[in-house]
Amino acid sequence: MKVYMDYGAASPVDPRVLDAMIPYFSDSFGNPSSIHSYAFDAQKAMKAARAQVASLIGAQPQEIVFTSCATESNNLALIGAAMRYRSRGSRIVVSNIEHISILNLCKELSKQGFDIKYVPVDRDGIINLQRLDELVDDETVIVSIMAANGEIGTIQPIKEAAETAHQHDALFHTDATAAAGKIHLDVVESGVDLMTLSSNDLYGPKGVGALYIRKGLRVKSLMIGGGQENGLRSGSENIPGIVGMGKAAELAEAEMKKEAEKLIQMRDRLIEGITDSVPESYLNGHPTRRLPNNANIRISYIEGEALILSLDQLGIQVSSGSACVAKTLEPSHVLLAIGLRHEEAHGSLVFTLGKGNREEDVEYVIKQMPGVVRRLRSMSPLTPKELS
Amino acid sequence: MKVYMDYGAASPVDPRVLDAMIPYFSDSFGNPSSIHSYAFDAQKAMKAARAQVASLIGAQPQEIVFTSCATESNNLALIGAAMRYRSRGSRIVVSNIEHISILNLCKELSKQGFDIKYVPVDRDGIINLQRLDELVDDETVIVSIMAANGEIGTIQPIKEAAETAHQHDALFHTDATAAAGKIHLDVVESGVDLMTLSSNDLYGPKGVGALYIRKGLRVKSLMIGGGQENGLRSGSENIPGIVGMGKAAELAEAEMKKEAEKLIQMRDRLIEGITDSVPESYLNGHPTRRLPNNANIRISYIEGEALILSLDQLGIQVSSGSACVAKTLEPSHVLLAIGLRHEEAHGSLVFTLGKGNREEDVEYVIKQMPGVVRRLRSMSPLTPKELS
Repeated sequence: MKVYMDYGAASPVDPRVLDAMIPYFSDSFGNPSSIHSYAFDAQKAMKAARAQVASLIGAQPQEIVFTSCATESNNLALIGAAMRYRSRGSRIVVSNIEHISILNLCKELSKQGFDIKYVPVDRDGIINLQRLDELVDDETVIVSIMAANGEIGTIQPIKEAAETAHQHDALFHTDATAAAGKIHLDVVESGVDLMTLSSNDLYGPKGVGALYIRKGLRVKSLMIGGGQENGLRSGSENIPGIVGMGKAAELAEAEMKKEAEKLIQMRDRLIEGITDSVPESYLNGHPTRRLPNNANIRISYIEGEALILSLDQLGIQVSSGSACVAKTLEPSHVLLAIGLRHEEAHGSLVFTLGKGNREEDVEYVIKQMPGVVRRLRSMSPLTPKELS
Repeated sequence: MKVYMDYGAASPVDPRVLDAMIPYFSDSFGNPSSIHSYAFDAQKAMKAARAQVASLIGAQPQEIVFTSCATESNNLALIGAAMRYRSRGSRIVVSNIEHISILNLCKELSKQGFDIKYVPVDRDGIINLQRLDELVDDETVIVSIMAANGEIGTIQPIKEAAETAHQHDALFHTDATAAAGKIHLDVVESGVDLMTLSSNDLYGPKGVGALYIRKGLRVKSLMIGGGQENGLRSGSENIPGIVGMGKAAELAEAEMKKEAEKLIQMRDRLIEGITDSVPESYLNGHPTRRLPNNANIRISYIEGEALILSLDQLGIQVSSGSACVAKTLEPSHVLLAIGLRHEEAHGSLVFTLGKGNREEDVEYVIKQMPGVVRRLRSMSPLTPKELS
């Protein structure tokens, strides 16, 4: 049995997306900047993709800039805005459970003289809005709070956070990598100024991302060159990738609601099944304000890495946190931020479900978990006698 | 008849490259940073691709960093080296016929306090080595001279330029976007410290590039995040794209010699055919030290844009310069740098041949050119009476 439940780390490209991309590799391969007929297909394809991505988040097509990945979008948003609006002040406010790219960007900006403030989250992973209000001052250039956390699944109150930012004339950025395509997002309703999107998290190809930049707002370009993407992102356009992201956004918009219902049912069954059958196992993150596809479960007395390897041998792929920091073997900063102890953070598993999962996959995981946990606990010196 | 001769602007992906990429979109789609079995295929694929790209230029696999495009590689090389080695001094020396991304990077670095010096080229487009030697001083951080110019085809003496840079302990970068896969390149033989490579120019997919960074050399990372690519380029790896670039490099290495012979024959026939049959038409760039696939021809008294549009109607796609600056309608800075007057630069056509071209394509272009030129000259007020 093959049960992949690590969609947050990497997702397969939807076959319909790949079909849409194929013609742009070897047939309609023109450069949109050319002035002959080969450019027209490329220009048309980009225009359509821009509209598709914009539509998913209630934006205007001209507000979408294509990048090479969500990390680049985060770089462009934070560094681009910080540098462009430096005269406004030097404070930047982010949550302490942001993706590693945001946190590392903040370290870099801190070296360059910016004053970074971190908003704490509660035990469910929701940002403390009162604390946010205290931290954002009139010197604040930008506030960045993710739409939802990919590890613990918690959905953030970004509308309220954006309001707080705007009360002090600060910009509001949200990293919607994990949220887009999973939950409803609307940049107008939520008052977002900048939003990071990832193609692969929408079942689009890797190597593409986008940044929504509210009309009228300018950020400093980080990729310097031929002035593509309205001067904001130079480099010859990755047309097949952009077409793929567009198609993925279109499919996400059309199918998200139904898909989410299915995912929520599987997710809740998975959480219930594991926490019921595995003693001393608990859900991390908010019980209801969470991504439809995310189940993060803490299992006392054992290491997440050992669990992952054991499950992998049974054909089950899961994660112990963000793949981006998996190799460091450090406990997840997100789990520490919600108040877990080091050993609790180490013993947590992230299940991210996706399109390929069926109910029988969930039942298979639920069936395998108690045995795997029992075996690992029996080898752990930390396990209390009654569980080993 | 369809005759595409604008391979420098965009190239079709080789079908063998696309075949190599396909499994990595929807089947072997794992994240190489994961710790379960899905990561292994991705890791293995990246390792193979890194070796393939390295082999093309005589480098070691660990000296290759994958990026999202040649522009990003240029950014990482110039900004990354300038920032990292700022304490060495503030001078940067580049040729005045570099790609727009290098020239725009220099403008940006100039704003940040760097002192940019431009090496002139002769009428054939070859850099003045004596002038280079005068400009490079002990305060020079980096020298950047392209391996070959994509517009006029001229191949630069990069080994000599690298020696000059090294005499003053400056780094040497070469943008090999147009040269790689067309002519033999060896980073050890030529003493290059940093080399930019583009995937699409090797018939690989768009949205991928690479930067060769000589072992032991560090540059400042521009894309901040999860620390992928040995901390030099964060962002989830574009596995299908990287696999494609690797395969493209492998094919280029195996087939370059034979391909170049074929291209040179077609190129020379094209140059001879046009300059013989079209009065007052001349070759731009060096007659022999030029890329096998490049013919840049100056045609007096008419506009390149009008020629491109007329040829396009006959099924022939060519360019008037770099596609990256085509929309600006400015005369090519490269043609001005080799001493052409504005109107001469405007009346130049760039033919970049490629794998899909056959001898009959060349004959078709040669056959069509005189009529197209005659018609356009008859409408131009600049045309002398004897030619109109």
